[in-house]
Amino acid sequence: MKNVHGGDIYSYKQEMLDFSANISPLGIHPEIMEAAKNALSDMDHYPDVFCRRLRNKIAEKEKVPKDNIICGNGAAEIVYNLVTALRPKKAFFLAPTFAEYEQACEIFVRDKEYFYLKEDKDFELDDSICEDITEDMDIMFLCNPNNPTGKLISKELLVKILDRCVENNVFLVVDECFLEFTDKEKDITMIPYTQKYSNLCILKAFTKMYAMPGLRLGYGICSDIELLGKMYMSRQPWSVSVVAEAAGIAALELRELPQKTVKFVEEERNFLISELEKRGIKVFEGEANYLLIKSRENLVDALLEKSIMVRNCGNYRGLGTEFIRIAVRKHDENQRLLDGIDSVRG
Amino acid sequence: MKNVHGGDIYSYKQEMLDFSANISPLGIHPEIMEAAKNALSDMDHYPDVFCRRLRNKIAEKEKVPKDNIICGNGAAEIVYNLVTALRPKKAFFLAPTFAEYEQACEIFVRDKEYFYLKEDKDFELDDSICEDITEDMDIMFLCNPNNPTGKLISKELLVKILDRCVENNVFLVVDECFLEFTDKEKDITMIPYTQKYSNLCILKAFTKMYAMPGLRLGYGICSDIELLGKMYMSRQPWSVSVVAEAAGIAALELRELPQKTVKFVEEERNFLISELEKRGIKVFEGEANYLLIKSRENLVDALLEKSIMVRNCGNYRGLGTEFIRIAVRKHDENQRLLDGIDSVRG
Repeated sequence: MKNVHGGDIYSYKQEMLDFSANISPLGIHPEIMEAAKNALSDMDHYPDVFCRRLRNKIAEKEKVPKDNIICGNGAAEIVYNLVTALRPKKAFFLAPTFAEYEQACEIFVRDKEYFYLKEDKDFELDDSICEDITEDMDIMFLCNPNNPTGKLISKELLVKILDRCVENNVFLVVDECFLEFTDKEKDITMIPYTQKYSNLCILKAFTKMYAMPGLRLGYGICSDIELLGKMYMSRQPWSVSVVAEAAGIAALELRELPQKTVKFVEEERNFLISELEKRGIKVFEGEANYLLIKSRENLVDALLEKSIMVRNCGNYRGLGTEFIRIAVRKHDENQRLLDGIDSVRG
Repeated sequence: MKNVHGGDIYSYKQEMLDFSANISPLGIHPEIMEAAKNALSDMDHYPDVFCRRLRNKIAEKEKVPKDNIICGNGAAEIVYNLVTALRPKKAFFLAPTFAEYEQACEIFVRDKEYFYLKEDKDFELDDSICEDITEDMDIMFLCNPNNPTGKLISKELLVKILDRCVENNVFLVVDECFLEFTDKEKDITMIPYTQKYSNLCILKAFTKMYAMPGLRLGYGICSDIELLGKMYMSRQPWSVSVVAEAAGIAALELRELPQKTVKFVEEERNFLISELEKRGIKVFEGEANYLLIKSRENLVDALLEKSIMVRNCGNYRGLGTEFIRIAVRKHDENQRLLDGIDSVRG
């Protein structure tokens, strides 16, 4: 068995500088650390099956009823729960995109269709996808911004896709796990549409913005209460640990952190784009806390030898091993990556 | 939605004395707390998808190859992963037993059969179950000691059942999550049989013995490597948090704790049995860290008013609401339960 995901620091003996996982460069916030530490004294109790305290806080933040929220062991778990509850037979995916949508579908889906994003269009999604949404499909996955391209889907196009899904009775999943890292979250989020459309689920995570992937916490927003009930029944009851719930509650109190992070990421992303382009490396200008680049095939392994991990995108459908995803990190770390690239290409 | 499990302290405003969840009365060990605290500084990394460090330690303890071990978000997750990987159509359960086996089967199983344990036989399992294992069955679940009865299945009977499962091509799951609380673990565990039989999976948990249900950690032992591969693929990749893995590793260093706990539990269990029987309450003499009793129907609610939670067994198949499960706790807490019962029955 091989771990095909980013962030696998455990396969190496030496300490790695990890650009392969897209975690906030600002790192763990002391208030989250404090809340998690305090929660450890509750480890001798089972977690709250329904994460009631956390869901109250999320409901406030997202301005949806708390009964429309389901928390999970990372947003990835919500994907699996959705698929198990819906039992789709035919699914529609972008390519490339986050591989777990397709992996989660393996259990039930017999037919898969892909909308291949084109390199010569910078992997931008366009209106032509709407024609491909047909009534034989049961579920469709969008990732906004997309992973690993960082490209945003416009609100206009999202609404068109949603309409088309409603017409054809297709359940639409919009993964907004990285949307908070862009400055367009408020305009682009589809969360308000969950209140009008029951065939829509939005995925969100604490993992990335609050630098807590090791604790595991994500959630889904959907107004189909019956479906949420089925999702709860499709999994073991205690998905979210007492530590993750406490950390999540503390995170939602940090009201200025997301905006500060967006600003920080934007500066460093622009720095990386300009420095990489200076070096003749093709950068697909995404708007998230990561960048897709195209480079010499051996860059991944060469950087590994310098204890720097980047994400080889060879296992993303529609991409080859010449595509690499790099997280936006702190300035000195980004500089170390650039230095590493220079010495490799030297 | 209602939480039908024990340990739901979150539904009450006041602090509850919780006899409804079967957690070690010795509570959180300082070494586990320390390890969990230290692991929090790694929360900004994804967990190891394969829990490699922890699995090495478990392999040493259980004397099986580490490739035969899969860790999960509690043993309950392993049940769901097994069912998703095996896709059984017909399943065989004890009644009463832990409800999650049946719940996990809902996705795939069309036919369910039950072996009803009889009250007039003190809910003891006997050889007659062997005849009921037939070739149309795909999976069978045993819980040893059984939950909520605490009754042990003898090694002799376990081996007979296993043989019968092998003959009929039935996959056998033996849940040994509470076996460590008995003094017969070494004689009764079926773990060595996993090395000869690939149709066998043993479930174990850190939750109970190490008082860490809030962190979520369990594992399965099975020598069918292909099946384990399918189990990994049936779930989101990062089930076990960095905190749970670190706590688990620390727990396995506490080599004298299980024995000390067994002794402590035995004394307090005997105390509870004798005191309850003195009060004319029927006790089914189990050997785990909990006891099944039969009492007046309103005992559960009456104790709740005294801020004491016990487990109403009305939602266990084969039991009515007159059956109650109580955890064995510390001496003064057990005394508080007895006092509570006295004042209720006044």
